[in-house]
Amino acid sequence: MIAPLPRHVVDDLIRRTLDEDLGAVGDLTSRAAIPADRTSRATVVARAAGTIAGAGIAASVFHAVDPAIEVHIAHDDGEQVDAGTVVLRLHGPTRSLLTAERSALNLLGHASGIATATRTAVDATAGHRARIVDTRKTTPGLRALEKYAVRCGGGTNHRTGLFDAVMLKDNHLAASDSIASAVAAVRADVGHTVHVEVEVDRLDQLDDALAAGADSVLLDNFSPEHLRLAVERTAGRAILEASGGITPDTVTAVAASGVDVISLGWITHSAPRLDVALDLEPG
Amino acid sequence: MIAPLPRHVVDDLIRRTLDEDLGAVGDLTSRAAIPADRTSRATVVARAAGTIAGAGIAASVFHAVDPAIEVHIAHDDGEQVDAGTVVLRLHGPTRSLLTAERSALNLLGHASGIATATRTAVDATAGHRARIVDTRKTTPGLRALEKYAVRCGGGTNHRTGLFDAVMLKDNHLAASDSIASAVAAVRADVGHTVHVEVEVDRLDQLDDALAAGADSVLLDNFSPEHLRLAVERTAGRAILEASGGITPDTVTAVAASGVDVISLGWITHSAPRLDVALDLEPG
Amino acid sequence: MIAPLPRHVVDDLIRRTLDEDLGAVGDLTSRAAIPADRTSRATVVARAAGTIAGAGIAASVFHAVDPAIEVHIAHDDGEQVDAGTVVLRLHGPTRSLLTAERSALNLLGHASGIATATRTAVDATAGHRARIVDTRKTTPGLRALEKYAVRCGGGTNHRTGLFDAVMLKDNHLAASDSIASAVAAVRADVGHTVHVEVEVDRLDQLDDALAAGADSVLLDNFSPEHLRLAVERTAGRAILEASGGITPDTVTAVAASGVDVISLGWITHSAPRLDVALDLEPG
Amino acid sequence: MIAPLPRHVVDDLIRRTLDEDLGAVGDLTSRAAIPADRTSRATVVARAAGTIAGAGIAASVFHAVDPAIEVHIAHDDGEQVDAGTVVLRLHGPTRSLLTAERSALNLLGHASGIATATRTAVDATAGHRARIVDTRKTTPGLRALEKYAVRCGGGTNHRTGLFDAVMLKDNHLAASDSIASAVAAVRADVGHTVHVEVEVDRLDQLDDALAAGADSVLLDNFSPEHLRLAVERTAGRAILEASGGITPDTVTAVAASGVDVISLGWITHSAPRLDVALDLEPG
Amino acid sequence: MIAPLPRHVVDDLIRRTLDEDLGAVGDLTSRAAIPADRTSRATVVARAAGTIAGAGIAASVFHAVDPAIEVHIAHDDGEQVDAGTVVLRLHGPTRSLLTAERSALNLLGHASGIATATRTAVDATAGHRARIVDTRKTTPGLRALEKYAVRCGGGTNHRTGLFDAVMLKDNHLAASDSIASAVAAVRADVGHTVHVEVEVDRLDQLDDALAAGADSVLLDNFSPEHLRLAVERTAGRAILEASGGITPDTVTAVAASGVDVISLGWITHSAPRLDVALDLEPG
Amino acid sequence: MIAPLPRHVVDDLIRRTLDEDLGAVGDLTSRAAIPADRTSRATVVARAAGTIAGAGIAASVFHAVDPAIEVHIAHDDGEQVDAGTVVLRLHGPTRSLLTAERSALNLLGHASGIATATRTAVDATAGHRARIVDTRKTTPGLRALEKYAVRCGGGTNHRTGLFDAVMLKDNHLAASDSIASAVAAVRADVGHTVHVEVEVDRLDQLDDALAAGADSVLLDNFSPEHLRLAVERTAGRAILEASGGITPDTVTAVAASGVDVISLGWITHSAPRLDVALDLEPG
Repeated sequence: MIAPLPRHVVDDLIRRTLDEDLGAVGDLTSRAAIPADRTSRATVVARAAGTIAGAGIAASVFHAVDPAIEVHIAHDDGEQVDAGTVVLRLHGPTRSLLTAERSALNLLGHASGIATATRTAVDATAGHRARIVDTRKTTPGLRALEKYAVRCGGGTNHRTGLFDAVMLKDNHLAASDSIASAVAAVRADVGHTVHVEVEVDRLDQLDDALAAGADSVLLDNFSPEHLRLAVERTAGRAILEASGGITPDTVTAVAASGVDVISLGWITHSAPRLDVALDLEPG
Repeated sequence: MIAPLPRHVVDDLIRRTLDEDLGAVGDLTSRAAIPADRTSRATVVARAAGTIAGAGIAASVFHAVDPAIEVHIAHDDGEQVDAGTVVLRLHGPTRSLLTAERSALNLLGHASGIATATRTAVDATAGHRARIVDTRKTTPGLRALEKYAVRCGGGTNHRTGLFDAVMLKDNHLAASDSIASAVAAVRADVGHTVHVEVEVDRLDQLDDALAAGADSVLLDNFSPEHLRLAVERTAGRAILEASGGITPDTVTAVAASGVDVISLGWITHSAPRLDVALDLEPG
Repeated sequence: MIAPLPRHVVDDLIRRTLDEDLGAVGDLTSRAAIPADRTSRATVVARAAGTIAGAGIAASVFHAVDPAIEVHIAHDDGEQVDAGTVVLRLHGPTRSLLTAERSALNLLGHASGIATATRTAVDATAGHRARIVDTRKTTPGLRALEKYAVRCGGGTNHRTGLFDAVMLKDNHLAASDSIASAVAAVRADVGHTVHVEVEVDRLDQLDDALAAGADSVLLDNFSPEHLRLAVERTAGRAILEASGGITPDTVTAVAASGVDVISLGWITHSAPRLDVALDLEPG
Repeated sequence: MIAPLPRHVVDDLIRRTLDEDLGAVGDLTSRAAIPADRTSRATVVARAAGTIAGAGIAASVFHAVDPAIEVHIAHDDGEQVDAGTVVLRLHGPTRSLLTAERSALNLLGHASGIATATRTAVDATAGHRARIVDTRKTTPGLRALEKYAVRCGGGTNHRTGLFDAVMLKDNHLAASDSIASAVAAVRADVGHTVHVEVEVDRLDQLDDALAAGADSVLLDNFSPEHLRLAVERTAGRAILEASGGITPDTVTAVAASGVDVISLGWITHSAPRLDVALDLEPG
Repeated sequence: MIAPLPRHVVDDLIRRTLDEDLGAVGDLTSRAAIPADRTSRATVVARAAGTIAGAGIAASVFHAVDPAIEVHIAHDDGEQVDAGTVVLRLHGPTRSLLTAERSALNLLGHASGIATATRTAVDATAGHRARIVDTRKTTPGLRALEKYAVRCGGGTNHRTGLFDAVMLKDNHLAASDSIASAVAAVRADVGHTVHVEVEVDRLDQLDDALAAGADSVLLDNFSPEHLRLAVERTAGRAILEASGGITPDTVTAVAASGVDVISLGWITHSAPRLDVALDLEPG
Repeated sequence: MIAPLPRHVVDDLIRRTLDEDLGAVGDLTSRAAIPADRTSRATVVARAAGTIAGAGIAASVFHAVDPAIEVHIAHDDGEQVDAGTVVLRLHGPTRSLLTAERSALNLLGHASGIATATRTAVDATAGHRARIVDTRKTTPGLRALEKYAVRCGGGTNHRTGLFDAVMLKDNHLAASDSIASAVAAVRADVGHTVHVEVEVDRLDQLDDALAAGADSVLLDNFSPEHLRLAVERTAGRAILEASGGITPDTVTAVAASGVDVISLGWITHSAPRLDVALDLEPG
């Protein structure tokens, strides 16, 4: 089971999502067209194959709209489903089910889209030591959800933000005499639990980064061949991360180089949503 | 010029975005690696061709991080740019530029991705009366931004949420004796400024919807041929919206049917981001 | 049954109301003067005849202060009551009942005052086609509650704000060559679900508004006679709204003109509160 | 000059007010009908005689919508104006002036209505020692503004809420053996800066309250004659407050009794708004 | 039993505290190292003798993290405990217990530290009329909690802030002709429930303050002897507060002077936390 | 110069602090006793020797209350000052200076108290390799400020919360077969930038932690002698942190053992505030 996000984070996300769709007024259509006492059964169904993320959050959306809605999670986060699979089974006031529908589906579809994209990359690199990780190229306001979705897809999280790990990029290095002095300056400033990663463009910089004692090195836009050389040269002295324009088509070759970590921006910033829908029946 | 979002909406969005990336601690790397008094020039550049949305918002991100950063908007929202085009020119403390970079790019890239997708559909339907509109299948927390981005791409907005227009779908209609009685119930309940749209699956339902006095009718998953028949039969008595699985490949044929409105979910829920980046130089 | 406001809207309203009265400290008097374990029965009673709005919200105030308070709603929103009628029956810790009292009464009295004023106008126009609607002249921070109260009084809601319908007033029209060009500019900009209303001062402008294809026309400060002429001339081509200084004394004559909609500012901005009080008895 | 509310209180109030009217979308009409670069002069005018409250807050609303709007306050809070008096003079982008108009007027009209009602009562009691004060019967969410408006009208504020003074009412007293023991229990619990007021219904209770050392006594629904007796009997040993159903017609007689304080609920819960409007002219 | 803080105040405090420790990500360690279905028994234990404040709040922290945690309060707020005393008994998911631990302990330890410091001063002045009160020298963001903790320690609260009582200090008096005119100006401005205290440095100012009709007088940095003279001279005409650098060592002598109130800044701004810890056992 | 906290973090902190002291009403005393147009010069002065933290934040408090106040920072964060040193020089409206005084001083005094305590420990360990770090035993709601203050005092920050590093304590280890399996489980779950620290009570556990590949080991309550043995045995294979009841008296001996990091709870949870005050003079 994937450990859930903190409750207050989920509550806020749901609150914001409902506020966008309901405003201060609510659901004009359902209140006028559906009798207040009508109840229904409903299912949330995946219309395409994919990996689920956000089932529990979608369930909470229905509860937030109306505590009288009962929800059963048929397939929980991290599970892979085929097209047509029922993810949630619901029962409650018809009005409330319809009022919550779009908010719940938008959250579930967005998160599951990311989980599905991540899973594709994870599967494409099976058998290699490399772990698939996300980046900070996330959708504004949704970083916690998206990083959670990456975990649901079998990936691992890179740093959360600028505040929980150091990444020395070219612009930072340009302000120092050398990689060594940049790493030293950072080590002197940050606490002992802060990981220091150095981004390099060329193999010779890798040597400097290793000599400087970087905890990990990001190899930016290296060809699979250069990645392999880097792995060889590093010999375990640091964690090696491949990054830069890696696609589903190239990720297997990258993994074959023996790197430890492969970071992919598109799994968060450009993954299409998983198609999910709500089917209603009387009851 | 595209009319901007209300200031408090933008301020909130920026606040949330920065909070995700900076947390309560800030940018560990820049504070350690970059001297406090160093300044730089920088540009935000489109790495691919597309339509800009969010240039002013990105500029405000830099200001929010540090009011000392000066920003010039070279290409504003709604403008189409080629790969390599400079969108923003910046000057200010290097630390602050790097701290704001990812938040600004994520907002600009996300919004411009949607504007670019919208523009593709708008261009593909040029010469036809149909307007390209969005749906409520938006990214949670970003509906206002995404609907704004649709406008930047030349599209128009469908209703904002459940609170500002009525859309009677099959689940609503199932609770009534007829389309006529459903429309009547809604008209009796909502104010005179509320638009009433009815979703139909088949041509014969269209007649009912028109007879019921719907302001507009959503033709769900109609073939181009059936759309043409619907246009003919309606003869201007209601606004006709084509919807359901319309893609960049099929949108021209749909438009050729003569419908008034084409709604596309993918421009908001699955558009890939526009690749934008920050280039720094001393100064 | 009047469809309730979204839960998060009500929760916020209650939170703000309690915060004003309790501050960070709470109820100094009750905590010192009432033993913690004392319980009471109490009733919330209307001291004057009127229409109830906010009974459920008042009930939620008591729950928010203390979940141990049990509440029974004797007369729900939309019901007309005489002086002396019990609206809520309560049982729970005496301290908590007294702490919640004023917040609950202020919400109930304010909303019921608006419902009562609305009901007066609705009753005064019975038998005519005109619907009584509110305006944007609402009390700051309470628009959602007040528009809900108008519905409880038998009225209907005009647009919620500047964001959900277009109203072209003289200042907007002054910026255009003609009503026709103003309406055309607006139609080109807004989505197909956005209603376009035009405000006119004189009968000849009505013709222009109709010709421009306005969905509705607001007839500002028209005499009943001119309203009748306008109804005749329009012949159903647009919805006609009478507005401007209409009072309880004049509203019947206005309705007799045959207009579709009558908007009244005073039902929200100047309605006196309905007198409601809490009576406590041991138990 | 009336001391203004704390800046963060005003900012919140304005933020909430604008959010209601603009939503996440903004002003559909002005953005479509008014060119972005058009500017105007405008005045905010009182359409009826009254006392101003909220002029500075209304000015801040315009600034919050658009910092480019210049505002001159012609008549500030506390000033009495005739019908037709210009309160604010404005200059700036026409779009922004129209977008801010209703929010600014609603705040100004609401607060000035309360100031005007207060001033009526203050004037009706001129020459007497009694001060006109408000109650906790305020509009939910607006207590700070309304108490400020009372000060603008020449009134004084009763306690802000349950947290800043003690008021022992019949329900509190019923939980004690005597007024004396209730006052003693409260004094033992609250700090030395907390004022203790006791509400009494009959003259004989007044003696008990005075003997108990109450700082002030609220004489509930006393006739003017009984009030006079109470004043005589008290002889300055406590502050005397007259309360309960006092109207503009009866307030002078009440004041003539010689009480120190007269509290009026209707100045906050039922005062009609002062009619204020915005006049626009090119420029 | 000490009356608890308002629920919304406690909820906010807990929310902020958890947000600091969990961020948007949660507890990395427990989610990886503890199986999701493992449960434990745990106790929160005082490691030193002291007075409890915040037991109920700590209990609510555990509930906020996971409603499945059951909590029994063994020693409630206001109780004095020895080292080794169990304050809370808990049972629930091990992960959740560990996730909530630090937030709960920080709140309990901080509040109990203040209660313990207050209790020391209260005990040191037993038998004297003086009450121990707090000041506005509280920890930013925690005033409500800290003033509550003072009550738990047997102390009483001075004013909450600048808004609920008047304190004329030397800087205020310097702006007036005399203490008399300053008091008169204040009385004319504030409501009748507002207590007016005057701070004086010398005995002769005390006479002025008494003559001006101050409700209480703060004697700043008076020696015990001068305090005694002040008590004598005042003869009950005003409440007398001793303040200024009073320590646990000097507080008894100050109380012996016969003053009514002794205010101590260190009980809120410099009290060390009470050492509290969580002990876990399987179950 | 110490890198400041993110602007939105500081703004929130100030907002919360002012809200506590001003409420919705403001400063009753200054508004009544000080003429609106009076201005003054003022200084914020350290009344005791110490290390400054929060000078810029205190300056921002004055600006937040009134932008018309000019502030000059004479001694900035991280500087050591003697008793009597002027930290801030201010000029502006007297009312506003007095209204902001307590909020500004509370923030400055609290943060500087922590910086001063930290500096004491840093100075006591000068010449040794050990760095002084904080813990998560911080004051609720103030973690960001307090960790910043630790940096101002020459210390370094341990992890911010549960979300940015792993710390395996006895309760976590008890859920695993061995330290090795616990570390392995964590490594598999968290990203490559997450530091893994293991807490041990005995020397033999240290060997297990080192063998498990912990990045650092917390030696809980080790005597200086055992610390020395641990340093020897570890020989640089992991970072060693001494923790547990270390006081100003024992910290030098601990540092002499050669550990890398010494964590101290009391610098955040029990440091007394630095005495700071505001002196006003006409001008």
